[in-house]
Order: sequence, then C-alpha cells, then structure tokens
Amino acid sequence: MNGIEKILNNIRVKSPLVHNITNYVVMNSTANALLAIGASPLMAHAIEEVEDMVSIASSLVINMGTLSEKWIDSMLLAAKKAKGSNTPFVFDPVGIGASTYRTQTALKIIEKATPDVIRGNASEIMALAQLTNNTKGVDSTIQTEDAVIGAIKLSKKLNNTVVISGAIDYIITGDIISKISNGNALMTKVTGMGCTATSIIGACMAVEPNMHLASTAAMAIMGIAGDRAGKMSKGPGSFQVNFTDNLYLISDKIIKNEIKLDE
Amino acid sequence: MNGIEKILNNIRVKSPLVHNITNYVVMNSTANALLAIGASPLMAHAIEEVEDMVSIASSLVINMGTLSEKWIDSMLLAAKKAKGSNTPFVFDPVGIGASTYRTQTALKIIEKATPDVIRGNASEIMALAQLTNNTKGVDSTIQTEDAVIGAIKLSKKLNNTVVISGAIDYIITGDIISKISNGNALMTKVTGMGCTATSIIGACMAVEPNMHLASTAAMAIMGIAGDRAGKMSKGPGSFQVNFTDNLYLISDKIIKNEIKLDE
Amino acid sequence: MNGIEKILNNIRVKSPLVHNITNYVVMNSTANALLAIGASPLMAHAIEEVEDMVSIASSLVINMGTLSEKWIDSMLLAAKKAKGSNTPFVFDPVGIGASTYRTQTALKIIEKATPDVIRGNASEIMALAQLTNNTKGVDSTIQTEDAVIGAIKLSKKLNNTVVISGAIDYIITGDIISKISNGNALMTKVTGMGCTATSIIGACMAVEPNMHLASTAAMAIMGIAGDRAGKMSKGPGSFQVNFTDNLYLISDKIIKNEIKLDE
Repeated sequence: MNGIEKILNNIRVKSPLVHNITNYVVMNSTANALLAIGASPLMAHAIEEVEDMVSIASSLVINMGTLSEKWIDSMLLAAKKAKGSNTPFVFDPVGIGASTYRTQTALKIIEKATPDVIRGNASEIMALAQLTNNTKGVDSTIQTEDAVIGAIKLSKKLNNTVVISGAIDYIITGDIISKISNGNALMTKVTGMGCTATSIIGACMAVEPNMHLASTAAMAIMGIAGDRAGKMSKGPGSFQVNFTDNLYLISDKIIKNEIKLDE
Repeated sequence: MNGIEKILNNIRVKSPLVHNITNYVVMNSTANALLAIGASPLMAHAIEEVEDMVSIASSLVINMGTLSEKWIDSMLLAAKKAKGSNTPFVFDPVGIGASTYRTQTALKIIEKATPDVIRGNASEIMALAQLTNNTKGVDSTIQTEDAVIGAIKLSKKLNNTVVISGAIDYIITGDIISKISNGNALMTKVTGMGCTATSIIGACMAVEPNMHLASTAAMAIMGIAGDRAGKMSKGPGSFQVNFTDNLYLISDKIIKNEIKLDE
Repeated sequence: MNGIEKILNNIRVKSPLVHNITNYVVMNSTANALLAIGASPLMAHAIEEVEDMVSIASSLVINMGTLSEKWIDSMLLAAKKAKGSNTPFVFDPVGIGASTYRTQTALKIIEKATPDVIRGNASEIMALAQLTNNTKGVDSTIQTEDAVIGAIKLSKKLNNTVVISGAIDYIITGDIISKISNGNALMTKVTGMGCTATSIIGACMAVEPNMHLASTAAMAIMGIAGDRAGKMSKGPGSFQVNFTDNLYLISDKIIKNEIKLDE
C-alpha cells in the first residue's frame, strides 16, 4: 500500500486541528498522543460550542467511553455538523453492549450521522454488527473471524470503513481488508490505547481523504510505536511513557522498514 | 495472616471487572493501576447505566473526589444496587469535612447503603467517625491514635471494615487491627495514591469475601509497589511510572518476602 | 529582581491550599505539578461547595479549558467569593476566540470579578485585549509584539498582571515588563503545560502578595524545570515525567543560578 508514510509527514506539516469529544479517562493521554504525532488536539463538549469547534477542525473524533445525557446531545450535534460540512468523522463505540444505554447511544449516533470510520475491539464491532443487522445479542466469547465477518457486513451497510483492533488490526472497507500485525501485549495493560488509536485515525483522516488508507496508516503508527516502546519497557508505566516518545520519534523511514502489513 | 498472596493470583486469573464511580483527577491513573494489577477497570457514571454496570461487575468503588448533583444520584443508585445484589462495595470519602456538601454526601451514601469497606486518611476517617457519632467537628491536627479509636467505633457501628492509610496503614474490623508499614514518602507527592488504594481494595474484594483480608492485601500491594518504586525514582514523576510498573511486576513471592505486617 | 527564590521556599514551608476549577484534560497533571512544587491542590467544582472551598484555600485558579453551563456558574460564584474574601485569583482563558461561547464566558468572568493575574498564550491574550477594547476579531497570526502591546493595555485597564507564555514569557503589570527566557520546545508537545503554569502562578500568589513577583517566580520555576527536563528527555512522554521530577527537585539555588530574567 502506497501513501502511508506521506500521511505522517502531512500531519507534521499541517498540524491539523482534531476535535475530540471523548471520555474523561483518556482525555489527557489522547491529547498527548495527538501532540506527539504532530496534530493539534481540541477537546470541547458544550452543546453551545461544539458546532463552532467542528467548523474550525479538520476532523471529528467521538468516543463514548464515559457517557451522560448532555454529552450525548453534544455528540449528536457535532456529528451532524461534521456530516453537513464534510468534516471527516471517526466513532469509537466504547463498551457497546455493556449497557442498554450505551447500545442505544451508539445506534443513535450511527443513525443520525454515519461515521466515516468506526473503530472498536472485536467484541464491540461484533455487538454493533449484530445490532445493526437485528440479530441476537452480544456473545462474550467473540472469535475474531466472526467479528471480521460482522465488520464486512457493517462496512457494506454503512458504506464506510470499520477497524477492529487487537493483536492483529483489521481495516475493512467493504470487501477490502488490510491487516496490521505490529504492536505489543503491554498495550492491553494501559488504559485508553484503543481510544488513542481512534484519535490517531482522526489525525490521519484530517490529511488523507481515502479513509481506508488513513485508518491503515493510523494502525501502523500505533503498532510500530507499540513495538518500539515494548522493547524498552519494564511494565505498563514505562510503556506509556515510551509509547508517547515513540509517537514523537516515528518517521516515514521507520514506518517503511517496520510495518507488518498484509493486504 | 494467610491468604494475602493468593488474592493477587486470583485477581490475575479472574481479571475481575471493577466498576468505579470516581473523580476526574484520578480516573486515568486508577484505571491504569487496576490494569497493572490484573483487574479490568470499568468507569461509568450515568444514572441510566450504573445499575447495568453494577450487575456485570464483581465489585463497586465509589470515590467522591469531584462531586456534583448528578454524580451523587448515580453513586446512591449504584451503591443500593450493589447492596441488593451482594456486590462488594468500597467507599472513599475524599475531602469529607472540607465542605458541608461533601460531609452530607458521605453521610447519605453510608446511610443508604453501608459500604463493606471505607478507606480514607486519618483526617477523613476521624471526620466520619465524629459525624456518625454526633460529636464535635473535624480537628485539623488529627493524631493517628485518635483516628484509630474513631475507626474502631465506626467499624463496630457499621459492622464493616475501615482502612486508615498513611505511613502506617491500619485495617480495622471491630477489634481486629492489622497494620501495614510498607510504602514511601513520595506517595504523598503523587495525586490519587489514596484513590488508587481504594480501587485496589475494590480489585481484592472482587475475589476475596473476607473484607479484612482483602483490604490488608490491597494495602500490602500498594505499600510494596511503593517501596520498590521509591528506590528507583528521582521524584514524583518517575515514581508514578515506577509504581505502575511495580504493580504489574509484583508477585506472591515478593509479597511474602517484603510485607511488613503487624497484627 | 529580589525575592523569587524565597517564594519557592515559602510554598514548601506553608504548603498552601490552591483551589482549582480547571479542565478535565489537565486535572491530573496540574494536581501533580502542584504537589511536586510543594503546594496542596484542591479540585472542586460543584456550585454547592465552591464557596466553602474558596474560604479555606489560599488562592483560586480558574481555567476554562473544558466548559459547560454548570461549570461556568461555579466559576463565577467562586471568583466572586475570592474577590470578596481577598483570596488571590488567577484566570486562564483557554481557547478564547475559538468559539463565541468561550469568548463570552471569559468576558463574563473578567467583568464579574477581575482576576489578579491572567495567563494565556499570545493569541489568547491578544484576543482578550482586543475584545475588552472593542476592536476587531482575533488574528490567527499574532505577533508577540502585538500581544505585548495588547497585554499592557489590558493590564492597565484591569489594573492587574497579565502573563503571556511562549518561548519568552512576558510578565506585564502596567508599564512594568519582566521577561523569562527559560524553557524547552518539548513543552509545546505536552498537553496542559500552559494550564500548569497558571496553577503554579496560583501556588506563588498564595504566598506572595506582589502579583508581578509571584507570576515571575512561577514562570521562572516552569522554565527552569523545562530546561532541565528537556536535557534528559527523548520525547514528550519522558519530558512530562522529568518535568514533574524537576519541579520537585528545584531549589532556590538552582533558580538563582539558572534563571534567565530580563527586566
């Protein structure tokens, strides 16, 4: 796949403003990841200002990690504004299936404003795929193969890109599937790594109109920074520090040499 | 005391879901501490979903560090649900006594749903003990001995376990008192170490029905990780990183060799 | 300028309680910076308790990084209480000019309760200076010289101290201008460094009645900790850790030897 490295350089040259409506747990680490990669994070959630913020941003990230009524109203308004202004928009349905509230919120957002990209883990994507196809509830023992089949259906139905992150990341746009197998097991021991991946997709889609390519670039950047951080860390504390450093230090040459891409 | 080491192993084997309704300041570091120790953190506060979340969680942590009206409603609902479903529940009355609002909130939570464990510093536990015994207000120069006496009364009145954390941690269940003297002075220079202790109690009570034992295990894990981090740190920044690494690296053997337990 | 070093020592001796009503993104890192420097952070935002908190605090920090209606009400109430009780008060107008909502909120706070110190970057201070002088909107390519001219006008109009942070920090009280040129470029790659500067001003004003001196001390402490952290860091992840360590390790002797002050 050509073009991945140039996305990184474009982020650094343009420093795109990425508007995040995200959860309390990861706001700090997500903002730091965006800064490290070269983007400009903007975190704002008040219903009075989200439209103003979308209008000056180059992309929108909505993450439903910590929900409440007013935040959902703002998410819906921002998502509609993004669609209306052709601002690319990525959605992270954190914990969908864990509560009825979460499930209904995710479906409402997707119904009102189809995200250009949806990213989740296998369980979340499977839950979403089943719900949008009116089939049975979430199975807690999701097989990745099943999630991939679900993601293909979901992507075709929504005409967008769906990303399943895990030991292998799947980037799925209809029948087109790319796989990234970079990354380190310590990533599962740091909170918000999935949320960070979603925000990095936000940075990539801000400078690259091909959503499949942008999402693949983001997962490659995440995975390679994770590979490198894993080699120099004793545990999840030092991993988080080294991961942020490596987002800052990653270069197009490093991506070219270290990417594990299967397509 | 037998059984402390096996609690750590049980957390790692079962990876219990610990539902936290906690404050904005520590959400990230608390979630990371739970992941490092082997538990699964769940942070959710909307009144629409807290009952769903308690019903799938193995324990509930309520921390009133940053309060507001809607959060208090959710805390009360979650606490009642925990009591109704026999889900173990630990409460952290952060800053009780600093404002009337905080004091009233803590009392309301305790009245509506008695926590299985309450953890605070000496001032907080003293404030709570005095309030529940209708005695005079908070003395800002609390002696630990007075707090211990207050904690014994409080524990007997509520028929639960009360933990006072400090240079020496006291775990008090009626007349049974255990003391842990592990830990490092840098722990007082990192925000949310007390909140983290409360969440680690949440992880331990999720796998151990004896609340006194679970609380003692949690304070030992905190203190030993603190001892080890303190030896390799130059200040509170590196301490936080090393502390998280050591929560990840701690083993039953390390606990057995390094615990400073007096009972 | 005499007296800067003694401010640091006074913070460490008195450990002043600094009440912060700040944004979700930086609460953790700001609280940690205050602890590292020797102050006691207090984070509380409920309208029911902000007056109680101001009354026990030695200074108030209001930062509008993540706004919403209820928080604004609390900010206004806390600011008025601070003025009424002669509690020094510093304001950080994060993102003013980015949305109408933000601009109106900043103006409302300044109108209801003039901050003793206002700190922002050149764009924010310029926006505020133009708005309070009823001139044209924000120019996105602010020259520092223009911002300094704006800050002088703003300071004279409000009869307070205005701080512009950047590669060179300007501390402006009417026609008195002090410049600090310590600091490292990695500070722009870590979220919340400006917010941290504002909170450190809060710590300094809690022990020093001369607001110009307190603000200069704060910017010197920030810059010197940044210089030192920059020399030992590979990227923004390790920088954040080293910065916090250096806030803890800084001494009056280090300030005296390393301060780059022009006045």
